[in-house]
Amino acid sequence: MKIKKAQHKNTNRIAGMILISFMCISGLNIHAQDARQQRSPQIVSPEISPDNSVTFRLYSPDASSVFLSGSWMATGKTGELTKNSEGVWSIKTGPLPPSLYNYNFILDGVTVTDPSNPLTTRDVRRLSNTLIIQGAGSDFIEVNNVPHGSVTKVWYDSPSLHLNRRMSVYTPPGYEDSKEEYPVLYLLHGGGGDEDAWTTLGRANYILDNLIAQGKTKPMIVVMTNGNADQTAAMTDSKTEPVNNAMSMASEKFPESLVKDVIPYIEKHYRVKANSANRAIAGLSMGCLHTQITAMNNPELFQYIGLFSLGLHFNDDLAIVTNKWLIPAYDNNLERLRANYKLFYIACGIDDFVYDGVKVLRTKLDGRNFKYIYNESTGGHTWANWRDYLSDFTQKLFR
Amino acid sequence: MKIKKAQHKNTNRIAGMILISFMCISGLNIHAQDARQQRSPQIVSPEISPDNSVTFRLYSPDASSVFLSGSWMATGKTGELTKNSEGVWSIKTGPLPPSLYNYNFILDGVTVTDPSNPLTTRDVRRLSNTLIIQGAGSDFIEVNNVPHGSVTKVWYDSPSLHLNRRMSVYTPPGYEDSKEEYPVLYLLHGGGGDEDAWTTLGRANYILDNLIAQGKTKPMIVVMTNGNADQTAAMTDSKTEPVNNAMSMASEKFPESLVKDVIPYIEKHYRVKANSANRAIAGLSMGCLHTQITAMNNPELFQYIGLFSLGLHFNDDLAIVTNKWLIPAYDNNLERLRANYKLFYIACGIDDFVYDGVKVLRTKLDGRNFKYIYNESTGGHTWANWRDYLSDFTQKLFR
Repeated sequence: MKIKKAQHKNTNRIAGMILISFMCISGLNIHAQDARQQRSPQIVSPEISPDNSVTFRLYSPDASSVFLSGSWMATGKTGELTKNSEGVWSIKTGPLPPSLYNYNFILDGVTVTDPSNPLTTRDVRRLSNTLIIQGAGSDFIEVNNVPHGSVTKVWYDSPSLHLNRRMSVYTPPGYEDSKEEYPVLYLLHGGGGDEDAWTTLGRANYILDNLIAQGKTKPMIVVMTNGNADQTAAMTDSKTEPVNNAMSMASEKFPESLVKDVIPYIEKHYRVKANSANRAIAGLSMGCLHTQITAMNNPELFQYIGLFSLGLHFNDDLAIVTNKWLIPAYDNNLERLRANYKLFYIACGIDDFVYDGVKVLRTKLDGRNFKYIYNESTGGHTWANWRDYLSDFTQKLFR
Repeated sequence: MKIKKAQHKNTNRIAGMILISFMCISGLNIHAQDARQQRSPQIVSPEISPDNSVTFRLYSPDASSVFLSGSWMATGKTGELTKNSEGVWSIKTGPLPPSLYNYNFILDGVTVTDPSNPLTTRDVRRLSNTLIIQGAGSDFIEVNNVPHGSVTKVWYDSPSLHLNRRMSVYTPPGYEDSKEEYPVLYLLHGGGGDEDAWTTLGRANYILDNLIAQGKTKPMIVVMTNGNADQTAAMTDSKTEPVNNAMSMASEKFPESLVKDVIPYIEKHYRVKANSANRAIAGLSMGCLHTQITAMNNPELFQYIGLFSLGLHFNDDLAIVTNKWLIPAYDNNLERLRANYKLFYIACGIDDFVYDGVKVLRTKLDGRNFKYIYNESTGGHTWANWRDYLSDFTQKLFR
């Protein structure tokens, strides 16, 4: 008995030592940092209470101010954390509805992520933490115990853009084991985004997994391109950042390359139903402009078109750029689209700054007696809305 | 002329407006943060000078201290930033040799990332910024203008672990367009890591791209698994963190599932040469323990074996766990391995805390007159070394 006990004790000690040994895998100087970090107490952040209120904590005896900025807060609002005698700053929210949220701390004026929460996403150049409040409003974006599709980062030649560049391709669960051909959704990101945005911020792959598992959405391939015509890949995987000027963002170059380079690549390399009845296109914001340019210049290419958070000109200045290509395309090709399409879907939040432009587009379509589905949501120009729109839109595809 | 000028002016104004419009794609409350951020001056960080010295900057009039911790610094060292009259903290390093580095700021005792640098990687639970000094020592890990392989996140059934779980699979450039069958390297991560570690921290896909483009490494498939037997996927894509205790990390469960579940999946779903002459396995630290367990329990499975930064027991405590499986496997199966293998490769840094354990293994192999290649590098238990080892090892495979 004595020996057994000693062994047991030893095993615990071993556990600790292996843990320390194996965990020293960083090139970083952890010991040095620990010294500077003034030996922090155990911090849990964020901590979700049973009523879905959330406590955020940060340890810093030296900070003079810490604020919280969260995607659930109204524009212009932040929350101020208060410091206890141990140097731990904290703030507790009211109950939050189930959803995915992003947040940052603002530590002595510097926007930082919560060091206790390793889950972050990058939006354009900015990192923020993610926080999921579980429940009916977040189920559809969670990694649930359902079959999962694959996501591949594929490099393809784009002769139109004179670049070899990267895209993300979702293939549905079962693709690898089947001989079936699938329909395809081309899904475009917004300004400052890239081929990672729809999976990291949009969680498109998990939204599709969940809907397919429930039988609400047909299994499909989702192609998530990089809409920055001068960039080979996301800034994490290239030496370039997006060229975020109007002429570049609103140009026809990417839509052209989508038609000439991307679609042929996908239809050659994946088992797809290569016809307009099995092709959909959708995009958000800048990607919605690209969607409109692509679909209206090629009215026989897609039977399913989704416009998320953009319409026509939403102010007189922008009109000068977009009208150049877009208004003539609508004027000239709407009848050809009418003869071919199955679904024209428009979604916008009532607080979105592009709301008026969406109204202009709807008025134009109404004037031509062109049928579309309109999903007017609450909220603004946000990923929370775009995740919802994607879920709603994909359930209507290829029926 | 006057009209032209006015148009030009207008275009610039439009550019600005579209930029603002399209860039408001975050769910976060940017305006609120800007207010709290006290309108920062233009900050460039990190700024690399022509002589490869680097200036790091952070704007925070209110901070009481800012330190820099970088992977190029000696253990126990940090650098203290100094504040100028505008509230900008800065520090300039000496010239750094070309390589990939990680760094953090320590702002009022809190380890944070540099808000001016959107490039980060996660190591276990910790985010840090990446910085590449270009040149002869970093060429091999950069995203160069060469053909790129694809990286797929694949979910597979693991009946041995009773889990559906995720791995990363690299297919070499040209895989999609060829009918060729390829050899396969199974590449295992260290403690606290996951199926993302070898691509994000290890840059394995870009290392392979570059070596294949130079004709130094044969095109191969690289399978990067998740070695945490209780975890379905990386913490970013599951609801679980790795169980980092000794019995879990050093157990035979993952090595068993690699043989029973992973290899059959890969050999069924990819165009591979399914024989031991075309199978390699390598791993770092915990993954090196898994590599040894897998290879020594199945001495006819792999002709190429790579051990990065681990040998046998490197202290008497750890020996109790690893010896249980590993020593008998070496003792019983070394002759079977001798009859089959082409390459047994060991790499370790002279400053690595596992160095003595590697010596124990080498002594054991020498005593049995078992041939191996030994790469003794400078440095310690670091990703800089593991990237080098991968580059060196893959050049010797399938010859």
